[in-house]
Amino acid sequence: MVAEAEAMRAAIAASEQVRGTTSPNPPVGCVILDAGGEVVGVGATEPPGGPHAEVVALRAAGDRARGGTAVVTLEPCAHTGRTPPCTDALRAVGVARVVHAVSDPNPQAAGGAAVLRAAGVDVHSGLLADEVARGPLRAWLHFARTGRPHVTWKYAATLDGRSAAADGTSKWISSPESRAEVHRIRGQVDAIVVGTGTVRADDPHLTARAPDGALLARQPLRVVVGDSDLPPTARVFDDAAETVRLPGGDPAAVLTALAERGVVDVLLEGGPRLAGAFLAARCVDRVLAYLAPMLLGSGPAALGDAGVGSISQAWRLRVEETTMSGPDIRVSAVPQDRPPA
Amino acid sequence: MVAEAEAMRAAIAASEQVRGTTSPNPPVGCVILDAGGEVVGVGATEPPGGPHAEVVALRAAGDRARGGTAVVTLEPCAHTGRTPPCTDALRAVGVARVVHAVSDPNPQAAGGAAVLRAAGVDVHSGLLADEVARGPLRAWLHFARTGRPHVTWKYAATLDGRSAAADGTSKWISSPESRAEVHRIRGQVDAIVVGTGTVRADDPHLTARAPDGALLARQPLRVVVGDSDLPPTARVFDDAAETVRLPGGDPAAVLTALAERGVVDVLLEGGPRLAGAFLAARCVDRVLAYLAPMLLGSGPAALGDAGVGSISQAWRLRVEETTMSGPDIRVSAVPQDRPPA
Repeated sequence: MVAEAEAMRAAIAASEQVRGTTSPNPPVGCVILDAGGEVVGVGATEPPGGPHAEVVALRAAGDRARGGTAVVTLEPCAHTGRTPPCTDALRAVGVARVVHAVSDPNPQAAGGAAVLRAAGVDVHSGLLADEVARGPLRAWLHFARTGRPHVTWKYAATLDGRSAAADGTSKWISSPESRAEVHRIRGQVDAIVVGTGTVRADDPHLTARAPDGALLARQPLRVVVGDSDLPPTARVFDDAAETVRLPGGDPAAVLTALAERGVVDVLLEGGPRLAGAFLAARCVDRVLAYLAPMLLGSGPAALGDAGVGSISQAWRLRVEETTMSGPDIRVSAVPQDRPPA
Repeated sequence: MVAEAEAMRAAIAASEQVRGTTSPNPPVGCVILDAGGEVVGVGATEPPGGPHAEVVALRAAGDRARGGTAVVTLEPCAHTGRTPPCTDALRAVGVARVVHAVSDPNPQAAGGAAVLRAAGVDVHSGLLADEVARGPLRAWLHFARTGRPHVTWKYAATLDGRSAAADGTSKWISSPESRAEVHRIRGQVDAIVVGTGTVRADDPHLTARAPDGALLARQPLRVVVGDSDLPPTARVFDDAAETVRLPGGDPAAVLTALAERGVVDVLLEGGPRLAGAFLAARCVDRVLAYLAPMLLGSGPAALGDAGVGSISQAWRLRVEETTMSGPDIRVSAVPQDRPPA
């Protein structure tokens, strides 16, 4: 017998496995418990056009789902998109209870809980909702509410805020542990965004790689923002992943263009100038800082002009979490002048 | 019956109460347990010339110390300085067991454990030694080993390393919680050091104050380093505490001059220039950073030139602890090119 919270954690873990492969659909996880409370099926959202998490998990469970419980990270959908409503699938097999973490904010898809209740299914909402909303469904919930991709600005800097030494050297400020984590995150987002300045200065590959350098199976879209000429030999233009160029000047327009491509989750890895522009345009939804235990005292700052002249205009954040990433201090924080994602 | 670790924590707490009042002697705490393990005396080092912690605690315990245990943060001294040896006092009253945290690194005073053992006292060393060595006795142990005061460079900055906005405004980057903590720390050190630049730019008072602004009973020495002229009306020259001026240019000479005044524990609150000079001269033993959840993107950096031109020359630190101070991230770290204090 598995507790429902434990089943929800398994559903969250299943959803984490498919992050980056489902947009514009949400990465959902589902665990089916039989009538005796044993796990009989686990599933996660398949790529667009494929079945939702509930259907994948129900297929695995088969008849053992009858009279059982579906534990799912998002309220089951009640509408027909490219696939039939999940509520139908749950009712068809005779699931007795549905426990979901977060409710669907999308008016088109919402109402699944009501449909299920009307059909006599016992529905419970909110189990580990914060964990799911801050975790695997964070970007998608933001997108569903705002129509705009969720942007995480990631940067690495020394404790005194420098992203390189005075001579431009920066390898390596962040630790191997932090760099490996960034590659894992790249493998989970839809797009990585940098500016032309970063491409010209660092010639980054912008791929998601394993610690041994091997490319991960799935690569995010590479996005280069800005109008400067770039050498066609830049590594970002190789065939390891798709690359698009977008005009600079208006971060909101960049996000609109990315939304039209189905991008939901963006990792902004730009230099000080692009990061400042995104922050000033209120186009940063989360800040992920890797602060290395190191002091430089000179060299370029991690963040450039962000439209702040006086302390009263500072961009204020709320720290969500501070953890160690190897020797580095990893800070996740959310800008405070808008509701959290 | 009180466990010895619990008694040691009480001794540590007693020693914390006298930090800043004992230099050049160490702030030591002592708890006496009677033969049944009950607390019968607590004491801490009195100001120079006054009794040591053991003697204060033994006086409180009286005859109840006989056959009991002395739990003390530092190995009892066996030498006659301005006061008689503590080993004599412990033997005179018939204490059966002595438990101390750290051994005395001072060759002149060391050997107390051996003297006590030779007299038939059961001696145990090392209980909560790390906690004491990193805590109340940190500066004194550093001074005993090196002959130089222990320097904590404290700074407040935004997550992007700025100590003020572009227009110079900086009130307030750090939170009320962090500012209150800094005042408590000021009340525990022997001296606060700033440069003439900070006096001219900010006109700080450099006193230890309660949250309501009232001066604490004990004030550290105020030290202004540098050769520039300062207005006699600067607040640092008022009569709230003693102030000395020392020439700039050589941080090591500053520390020598302070050591000659009996200063053991220094809080460096200088601006980017003085902090850079101390760091470059290897005169920083600990970094205490209050990182505010705020981004500026422009304005002065917290740390100026520290003699680093390339990433390979970066000053590397080891993070001791990362905690929250209200909304701020408080980082305690130790430079890595010398043994920890």
